[in-house]
Amino acid sequence: MKFTCQRQDIVNAINMASKAVSPKPQTPILSGMFLRAEEGKLEVQATDYEIGILYDIPADIETPGTIVLPGRYLQEVVRRLPDDRVLFSLDEKNRIVHIRSGNANYTLRSMNAGDYPGVKRIEGTLSFTIPDTVLRSLFRKTVFACATDDSRPIFTGVSFDFDGKKLTLAGTNTHRLAVKTKTFDDEIGKLKLIVPGKTLQELLRTFTSDVPTNVQITCSMNQISFQYENLYFTSRLIEGAFPSFANVIPRNTVTTVTMTTADLSAAMDRVFLISRTNDYNVMKLHFGDNNLHISSSNPDIGMADEDIPATIAGPDIDIAFNATYLVDALKVLEGETCTFALTKPLAPVLITEPNDPEFQYVVTPMRTH
Amino acid sequence: MKFTCQRQDIVNAINMASKAVSPKPQTPILSGMFLRAEEGKLEVQATDYEIGILYDIPADIETPGTIVLPGRYLQEVVRRLPDDRVLFSLDEKNRIVHIRSGNANYTLRSMNAGDYPGVKRIEGTLSFTIPDTVLRSLFRKTVFACATDDSRPIFTGVSFDFDGKKLTLAGTNTHRLAVKTKTFDDEIGKLKLIVPGKTLQELLRTFTSDVPTNVQITCSMNQISFQYENLYFTSRLIEGAFPSFANVIPRNTVTTVTMTTADLSAAMDRVFLISRTNDYNVMKLHFGDNNLHISSSNPDIGMADEDIPATIAGPDIDIAFNATYLVDALKVLEGETCTFALTKPLAPVLITEPNDPEFQYVVTPMRTH
Repeated sequence: MKFTCQRQDIVNAINMASKAVSPKPQTPILSGMFLRAEEGKLEVQATDYEIGILYDIPADIETPGTIVLPGRYLQEVVRRLPDDRVLFSLDEKNRIVHIRSGNANYTLRSMNAGDYPGVKRIEGTLSFTIPDTVLRSLFRKTVFACATDDSRPIFTGVSFDFDGKKLTLAGTNTHRLAVKTKTFDDEIGKLKLIVPGKTLQELLRTFTSDVPTNVQITCSMNQISFQYENLYFTSRLIEGAFPSFANVIPRNTVTTVTMTTADLSAAMDRVFLISRTNDYNVMKLHFGDNNLHISSSNPDIGMADEDIPATIAGPDIDIAFNATYLVDALKVLEGETCTFALTKPLAPVLITEPNDPEFQYVVTPMRTH
Repeated sequence: MKFTCQRQDIVNAINMASKAVSPKPQTPILSGMFLRAEEGKLEVQATDYEIGILYDIPADIETPGTIVLPGRYLQEVVRRLPDDRVLFSLDEKNRIVHIRSGNANYTLRSMNAGDYPGVKRIEGTLSFTIPDTVLRSLFRKTVFACATDDSRPIFTGVSFDFDGKKLTLAGTNTHRLAVKTKTFDDEIGKLKLIVPGKTLQELLRTFTSDVPTNVQITCSMNQISFQYENLYFTSRLIEGAFPSFANVIPRNTVTTVTMTTADLSAAMDRVFLISRTNDYNVMKLHFGDNNLHISSSNPDIGMADEDIPATIAGPDIDIAFNATYLVDALKVLEGETCTFALTKPLAPVLITEPNDPEFQYVVTPMRTH
């Protein structure tokens, strides 16, 4: 194998592939990245059996072939190369790869390419395209609500429910629930699946470009893939049935409060300094007189409280929440104002945004006495 | 106690004082910061018994007094306050302090100010002023060479040797030695002391201003203090006698090599990727034919090598070093070129900069066979 390519191209490919290289790989070969040179392009592959990444870049191929190189070293090496162009050449007899760029020479031992499990492009039962900006919002507004502990794997994933023209995403840790829907112009199909939250977090990190792009999504029974630009990203699914959550969303709320999101977020961040020192992370809210009073106290440290203007329709209410569940949600809101719909002190709150009717967030309150 | 001040002033004061609050304080009171309000100013104090910090800011004092507040919380609270002005008021009966800024209210429990050890301004036997830029260079070019393990405390400090008009700083971990001298116009005095490397690292971090300033240094037998702008910074000294190092600096070298510092640094950084994977961190250098060949290998991973142009006077030489000792030094060099003066493969190298005749760096080579 022998090829040359642009340094920045291979840096991009390897940075992307590194997201699928586990710091503690299940088998030694998974610490490597698989490189295939053929037909004017170089394909870089990496997988940790949970997610798989393929990334293509243009390359001048002198001799086609495949190699597996240690991922961590390869990433550090290419990042530091001095010249715009890079030459890779395999010394097949000694199973070493020479990397040359400007005056710099590296030699890395090649792992056995035949041992590499490889990342395959999946054949889907359902396939559609969606703008990356829409996908970003769908992911951001649901994945944060997932559970992070593995005790019930289903809750570490986001439910995808395709139903005709509607796609509904939902994440929950059983104490809070985030739901976001997207309605398409055309029928997509009917399918339910659960995508690991980590997959969506990694994907979110890949959406760094300012240029809008379309993402091709393909789903099979046990895998989902996302393709855009040079990237093909595939993930296993979480097995099981996601619980029905329609009944969790409060319907007949009695107090409706609208606030400026930025004010609410800043005030809660400040009170959170005290909340987070508590074992139960309690933040108390008093809605009344077109005012929200936020407070939290810790007998060992002190207390914090703050008032912000609120437009309140309905009776006054005192309610308390795990502060993290509020603060997390405020980070993903996109509009200028948000609305809290409340019923009574021990009934869940429904948080929505006037500018995004397809988003709903529900938090169960805490008992404070 | 009751006062108001500018939020940004108290943020600066508390950020500075936080450098002296240990994450694991020896006694609970040292987790606090001492605040004294009197005569139009607020003084913030913190100490970990190693270093002590006093920082003054203007304040409108309504009632003078002193308090001790938990340092970590205080820092997070003031950083997030919404308004430009901040009001502190002590509720003496309940021993709590109210902090108000805009709509935000905090209450923090006050610790007992009478228990606080306090930071005192030292009376010196030797005192002088020096521009911060000169001090920065003196510190940067010596402190990196100190030992980081505490097995021989003397080597964790930088030696300050005041001798008439000359101040010589030196740091060593016994394998490498960095020496920098500053010659003053006037006599300073005669004194030898050892300042903890950590003190100098912390001080370096305080020199963030772009505006040149003069630093007042005062030394006593067991303390040193640095004063500039609103800051008074004091540190204990390390007891003991710093070993004489004049004989360690090679005199009759036979091969003199001059290189472009940026080229050398970039090449060594790249080869270091492999060196640092080795148990002994070995980097090999071959000087010959007006060329430096740098290489390093690890049988499990691979190797790296690179050539850079070098102006060589004297015989060829092969020599090997702990790569860290070279890479560290290259980070603090300031000039366009640097010079390696060599004698033989097992004799120390002397590294200097033509643009800074008052700096010398010596590294003992490694035996590679």
